[in-house]
Amino acid sequence: MAGAGPSPGGAPPPGEGSWSRWGPDDERGALNLIGPDAVRRGMAAVRAGESVTLGLPMITGKGPLAAMRQPMQHFMARDGGDYAAGLPERGGFGFADDSILVACHGTTHLDALAHVWRDGQMWNGFPASSVTSRGAARCGIENAGPVVTRGLFLDLAGAGPGLAPGEAISAARLAETVTAAGLAPEPGDALLLRTGWLRQWRDGAAGVDSCPGLGLDCAGWLRDQGIALAGADNIAVEAFPSPDGAVMPMHIAAIRDSGIYLLELLDLEELARRGVSEFLLVVAPLNIVGGVGSPVAPVAVV
Amino acid sequence: MAGAGPSPGGAPPPGEGSWSRWGPDDERGALNLIGPDAVRRGMAAVRAGESVTLGLPMITGKGPLAAMRQPMQHFMARDGGDYAAGLPERGGFGFADDSILVACHGTTHLDALAHVWRDGQMWNGFPASSVTSRGAARCGIENAGPVVTRGLFLDLAGAGPGLAPGEAISAARLAETVTAAGLAPEPGDALLLRTGWLRQWRDGAAGVDSCPGLGLDCAGWLRDQGIALAGADNIAVEAFPSPDGAVMPMHIAAIRDSGIYLLELLDLEELARRGVSEFLLVVAPLNIVGGVGSPVAPVAVV
Amino acid sequence: MAGAGPSPGGAPPPGEGSWSRWGPDDERGALNLIGPDAVRRGMAAVRAGESVTLGLPMITGKGPLAAMRQPMQHFMARDGGDYAAGLPERGGFGFADDSILVACHGTTHLDALAHVWRDGQMWNGFPASSVTSRGAARCGIENAGPVVTRGLFLDLAGAGPGLAPGEAISAARLAETVTAAGLAPEPGDALLLRTGWLRQWRDGAAGVDSCPGLGLDCAGWLRDQGIALAGADNIAVEAFPSPDGAVMPMHIAAIRDSGIYLLELLDLEELARRGVSEFLLVVAPLNIVGGVGSPVAPVAVV
Amino acid sequence: MAGAGPSPGGAPPPGEGSWSRWGPDDERGALNLIGPDAVRRGMAAVRAGESVTLGLPMITGKGPLAAMRQPMQHFMARDGGDYAAGLPERGGFGFADDSILVACHGTTHLDALAHVWRDGQMWNGFPASSVTSRGAARCGIENAGPVVTRGLFLDLAGAGPGLAPGEAISAARLAETVTAAGLAPEPGDALLLRTGWLRQWRDGAAGVDSCPGLGLDCAGWLRDQGIALAGADNIAVEAFPSPDGAVMPMHIAAIRDSGIYLLELLDLEELARRGVSEFLLVVAPLNIVGGVGSPVAPVAVV
Repeated sequence: MAGAGPSPGGAPPPGEGSWSRWGPDDERGALNLIGPDAVRRGMAAVRAGESVTLGLPMITGKGPLAAMRQPMQHFMARDGGDYAAGLPERGGFGFADDSILVACHGTTHLDALAHVWRDGQMWNGFPASSVTSRGAARCGIENAGPVVTRGLFLDLAGAGPGLAPGEAISAARLAETVTAAGLAPEPGDALLLRTGWLRQWRDGAAGVDSCPGLGLDCAGWLRDQGIALAGADNIAVEAFPSPDGAVMPMHIAAIRDSGIYLLELLDLEELARRGVSEFLLVVAPLNIVGGVGSPVAPVAVV
Repeated sequence: MAGAGPSPGGAPPPGEGSWSRWGPDDERGALNLIGPDAVRRGMAAVRAGESVTLGLPMITGKGPLAAMRQPMQHFMARDGGDYAAGLPERGGFGFADDSILVACHGTTHLDALAHVWRDGQMWNGFPASSVTSRGAARCGIENAGPVVTRGLFLDLAGAGPGLAPGEAISAARLAETVTAAGLAPEPGDALLLRTGWLRQWRDGAAGVDSCPGLGLDCAGWLRDQGIALAGADNIAVEAFPSPDGAVMPMHIAAIRDSGIYLLELLDLEELARRGVSEFLLVVAPLNIVGGVGSPVAPVAVV
Repeated sequence: MAGAGPSPGGAPPPGEGSWSRWGPDDERGALNLIGPDAVRRGMAAVRAGESVTLGLPMITGKGPLAAMRQPMQHFMARDGGDYAAGLPERGGFGFADDSILVACHGTTHLDALAHVWRDGQMWNGFPASSVTSRGAARCGIENAGPVVTRGLFLDLAGAGPGLAPGEAISAARLAETVTAAGLAPEPGDALLLRTGWLRQWRDGAAGVDSCPGLGLDCAGWLRDQGIALAGADNIAVEAFPSPDGAVMPMHIAAIRDSGIYLLELLDLEELARRGVSEFLLVVAPLNIVGGVGSPVAPVAVV
Repeated sequence: MAGAGPSPGGAPPPGEGSWSRWGPDDERGALNLIGPDAVRRGMAAVRAGESVTLGLPMITGKGPLAAMRQPMQHFMARDGGDYAAGLPERGGFGFADDSILVACHGTTHLDALAHVWRDGQMWNGFPASSVTSRGAARCGIENAGPVVTRGLFLDLAGAGPGLAPGEAISAARLAETVTAAGLAPEPGDALLLRTGWLRQWRDGAAGVDSCPGLGLDCAGWLRDQGIALAGADNIAVEAFPSPDGAVMPMHIAAIRDSGIYLLELLDLEELARRGVSEFLLVVAPLNIVGGVGSPVAPVAVV
């Protein structure tokens, strides 16, 4: 269904992206960096042998939620109230059943590479026109598959108030902080950042119109380190709004140009409380064929 | 909101269930068996360092789906077609956004302990009336948290046609087959069974009105082995319809009486192809507060 | 499925309701007052022969919406963008397709008699327990059928700012205003009131936490006049919050005790501009079997 | 948002359509034929003063439904079961609340002019690209407004079995049957046809893969008569599949070329039982801004 022919856009300049690094047909991007070594590195990081969920609670009508999206809804198709009202258990069996309607980017979620584009081109040059009402014919979330690798945790907020509204972390500061934290990224690792925004939001001290996060030049640093996935306790991983009128430029540089996955709206409070810096990370997007994202409940095995 | 007071039902007879084993307030059941040892045992089972998804593709209108449920729907709120139709990229940014509506038990999913009851009582004696239109106030899926443990794989179908329609495996046969396969379950393990039903369904050779699977007395065997979670490539893990008119009796014996979790509609074809028998299993239910189940894409790290 | 047996509640005192007026099995209430005479009276009220919609625009995420409900969503399953992106028209045919998800009380809507109850009893004594996850087994919106009758329009706001927040109109004032407006209600008529709240809401001058509207004692007056349906340009027809801690008492007195239908969130601006006082009203609820309300676009033929 | 510029398609040949008849900006098409005269003609057709709904019951998972669409779902957000399970009435008030998810063309519905196109052009030459994930910027259902006019009823099935599967009525036969029935269409009238398909479907004697209905050349006849809206007790008003490989050609000729509205999946059984041939028809589409159709419960006042 994709519109064929030349696109007005084009590949990122040499050294500023990763197109065709894994071949012209690749739809997985930087997840290709995760091989058995990364999996074993992740397992080797496990200390306590305990599992921590990084997923936000999903409750009808509750956020945080970007203004452009609609809140999730949880519907009960059968429940205990039905039986209390007189429905008999049948054959010794009573049950409840439910459904959810959820914006795939409206709670803790993993962006598909098909989520964003510039100049009509997505990751690896696939045309934006391959994403239609039928979903993404290219770079849909079903290409991601499970993400199992070592996770590195960088707590930029600590016990303090967290970053300022819209504050952007530069690549230099990011590199410095990573080093200061004793983290040594290797190709295929995932990097999770706590900006403090989620706690601020819960405290009523921050809204959804702006978030602190990574600045544009961090995309290059992530790519240089071989980071396969970057996540944060905010809406977009990157800081927004962007000071120069660009819209989500780091999304473009990370996802579109470099195939790096973004994992958003993480709850990193428990990791912060535990003070862990590395762990086995498992992110298992729902297998939504053509999905441009998936709600997830990422797991840190610490 | 739960109706208080005595219930006409009651705890399973001694030796036939696990109520109050983890205290009168427990809402996690047999997942309590999963501790650091089980996590490490799972990691020790990893050989290739590769990750396999066990989740079915999720596609609008596609099954397999029990007749009582409605098919999933994938909606695009923004897509590349909008831009092809003239919407300008704004600030160098084009994007797609989507939503899903899905029955929580209508694709690969984990049942919450709140999913079933008998005589008005769920796991550990909690009243069915605690499950209302607001969701499950008790034993909701948010209590499960991530499941990270060793998984054992039992391929009952192999290269053959699989079990017969509605065929029920007895506990004796299950035990025998487990032993023959060289599997040695330990407390906290997960057991995944391939009945062949999914392949039959894909081939048009089986419908959703019956499934082969575990027989009623398997629940006791699972409990005795300390299995925390049992999964299968069919609709209900257990065989149905039940020959004696009982409805899903093994659900009651496993979930309600013993707190054992059921993981259903797994795609185990790749595990079968690889011939693995144990692995690290990660199941990460969405954090749906009050959910009586969650769609999942379980991960086997093999 | 309804719980049988005696209820702790009971019929309204003599003269304060209409239970069993149309028989013990009646599920239509005051709509029984609408016979051929009312239809002809409505048609006789038509002057210009023009049709005016009283339904609010339905737009994804837009209100007004009571805080307890979720916003409507409009999903495109196929659109022109898909074709712009390369989908060929097939056999000379291109098309668009869409779906809506809408709270039945979340835009202009008609309440079913099953919408409210007190002491466990709905209209005519039917038990609240007949309304379950399967919908309303009694008094669902499918019992209403089309409402075709004379409509009377009472503009309480005129060119002024409208009623004050939460202001309740007493029965005496209602009667007086009706007379002053030259209206002469007859059994089976519908009465539509413009409080000015909708305009205030659009101007940002009013929220959804309170509305001016009818006071509790108006229910009796409506019943005495034989009004079959009362509507307004606000959330609940009645004023709220109620000063005495009662919740929606006029809903109970009108719907539950008297079988009078309420039609809410009307857009009455055009009727006001035209200065009409009577017209043919047609309200055609969707035939949702077991629905406790229906979104509608009522029509005034003026 | 619509892509501007010339289109490869074009206006229908002279005499074979109605483009620009009501001006180049018109988005209402043949509904412009309905003026005060048509409204009065409709009212004059009322005999009994009774109202009949023509809308199908809407029930979770029930059809009839074209294979490309998903079934409707009715969700209860609050119900009597919740109270039976222990939720107290608050302030003397208990209530139920619900939502529906429905394909706008998946039950009795009115097509918007934005529903179909050929050669990239909709009614009056508007580009198909004006219909995106945001809905129809042109010719959406909100342009229709209420339809109030005289309805003519043609019962092609009578007491017999109805038309044969896929049988197409020619314009000549249609004209003849109309005359034989004593109907005299005037501009602005609506014509409703009973093919017998709905009864066949209910009896299990017909599926959704084909329907009897109007043949392609009927569109011209309808236009010549000034019919504003044509409806039927089938999926598409027109017969399908088309014998020559064209897809829904009469949709194109009626809606796209002539601005005639189609009203589909009507329940005309009661009209047939009553033997009425003309009546006041009211169709009140929900005011879905940008909708390409709307579920409706049309009313025949007979």
